[in-house]
Amino acid sequence: MTIKAVVFDAYGTLYDIQSVATVTEEVFPGYGDIITQIWRIKQLEYSWLRSLMRRYEDFSVVTREALLYTLRVLGLAHDAAAFDRIIDKYLHLDLYPDALSTLAALKGRKLAILSNGSSGMLHALVKNSGLDRVLDATISVDQKRVFKPAPEAYTLIESSLGARPDEVLFVSSNPWDACGAKAFGLNVAWIERVTPQAMAEACVKSDVVPPLTMFKALRTQMDELGLTPDHRIRALSELPDLLAHES
Amino acid sequence: MTIKAVVFDAYGTLYDIQSVATVTEEVFPGYGDIITQIWRIKQLEYSWLRSLMRRYEDFSVVTREALLYTLRVLGLAHDAAAFDRIIDKYLHLDLYPDALSTLAALKGRKLAILSNGSSGMLHALVKNSGLDRVLDATISVDQKRVFKPAPEAYTLIESSLGARPDEVLFVSSNPWDACGAKAFGLNVAWIERVTPQAMAEACVKSDVVPPLTMFKALRTQMDELGLTPDHRIRALSELPDLLAHES
Repeated sequence: MTIKAVVFDAYGTLYDIQSVATVTEEVFPGYGDIITQIWRIKQLEYSWLRSLMRRYEDFSVVTREALLYTLRVLGLAHDAAAFDRIIDKYLHLDLYPDALSTLAALKGRKLAILSNGSSGMLHALVKNSGLDRVLDATISVDQKRVFKPAPEAYTLIESSLGARPDEVLFVSSNPWDACGAKAFGLNVAWIERVTPQAMAEACVKSDVVPPLTMFKALRTQMDELGLTPDHRIRALSELPDLLAHES
Repeated sequence: MTIKAVVFDAYGTLYDIQSVATVTEEVFPGYGDIITQIWRIKQLEYSWLRSLMRRYEDFSVVTREALLYTLRVLGLAHDAAAFDRIIDKYLHLDLYPDALSTLAALKGRKLAILSNGSSGMLHALVKNSGLDRVLDATISVDQKRVFKPAPEAYTLIESSLGARPDEVLFVSSNPWDACGAKAFGLNVAWIERVTPQAMAEACVKSDVVPPLTMFKALRTQMDELGLTPDHRIRALSELPDLLAHES
């Protein structure tokens, strides 16, 4: 097997979604963490629910609606300026520290993003972070009007890059996305950023769990969906070595 | 408009899913609440993800997989007996206190359940709780091999009961389910069991949120999916009056 293309999930994989907490905390002191976690959990829920209900709206709409929900549930009154300031951070998310060096080390293969994000969100994000200089393509599921992990979303890799599923390594830290890519037939590397040991230890005082720990318990451990990624790595920086042994 | 059939969601609507916490706490002291919440959140996530991935398995499988996930994430070692004791509670969930009297008061109309549960789970639950004596039908989405809120699931009401969507009142406390039913074209009563005021007050100390509060923040408040239920009630017991004015 020869890997011709390495395709990355964006949110949570190349970009640290937890980095929105700096802005949510500034706008709503004391609530930064809980806003960040509920927002992200609901953002994905809404993408799945809208896909299932056949009521697709692009990820910028879903992201705004999830934030609206979050602020309402927490009883946080806000004006348009505060709302827009938080939303704007989604176009300026921090890269994981090893993202740029990893992509540079993989030069020679086709490198792309396949993300639930809208084209507008992704192009702004990629440009603002400088990844436009190293990526061959930034693919939004928006063309298919359905979100990952629906198989239609993953078909965009072959139609955009001309690489067959068995020639692609798909990289995601999101367990549901790693499973969706595996179910579709891609080679998959899952990034396990939170070890099972650290996870279990964080939950020992289970009656009072910080929102970030609850988020990690819901969305960082491999899911039980009857699927197993081909590779389990701890960080993006392991990819060059992994690919050197693959092909 | 004449309402000929009143169709209820099961889990969380007629049956109190929080009642599993008594068993989870007995089996894993100190972890009863967090197990209950993660289990329920993942159970629904898995139903949506499997539907989207076209990897349908029935709700008994999804429920077991979600519990397996939960115990693994929390680092809780268990044997088959402990696991089965918890799972068994799903066949013996407590009814909400006003469920039986409400159904009795609605006699004369067709009364049914439409649930994501498998036929086996639902028939055991309905029999164990005595609802088999008042329901005309217990409909599982399993025939369609897709979970709510996919529209195919809601088509089973007309094909099973012979009532058109405009002749049905669908009752659910699950916001995503109320939205799915509304998107499909049913008349919908959403049960708001947690008021916005109570919700916001529970989150004031947002750095240490009990798992039940986090669950409520994620799954008891009306979602932002561009849909609004026709009726918002606080309890099942409001239904007889609501229907007296409807038709």
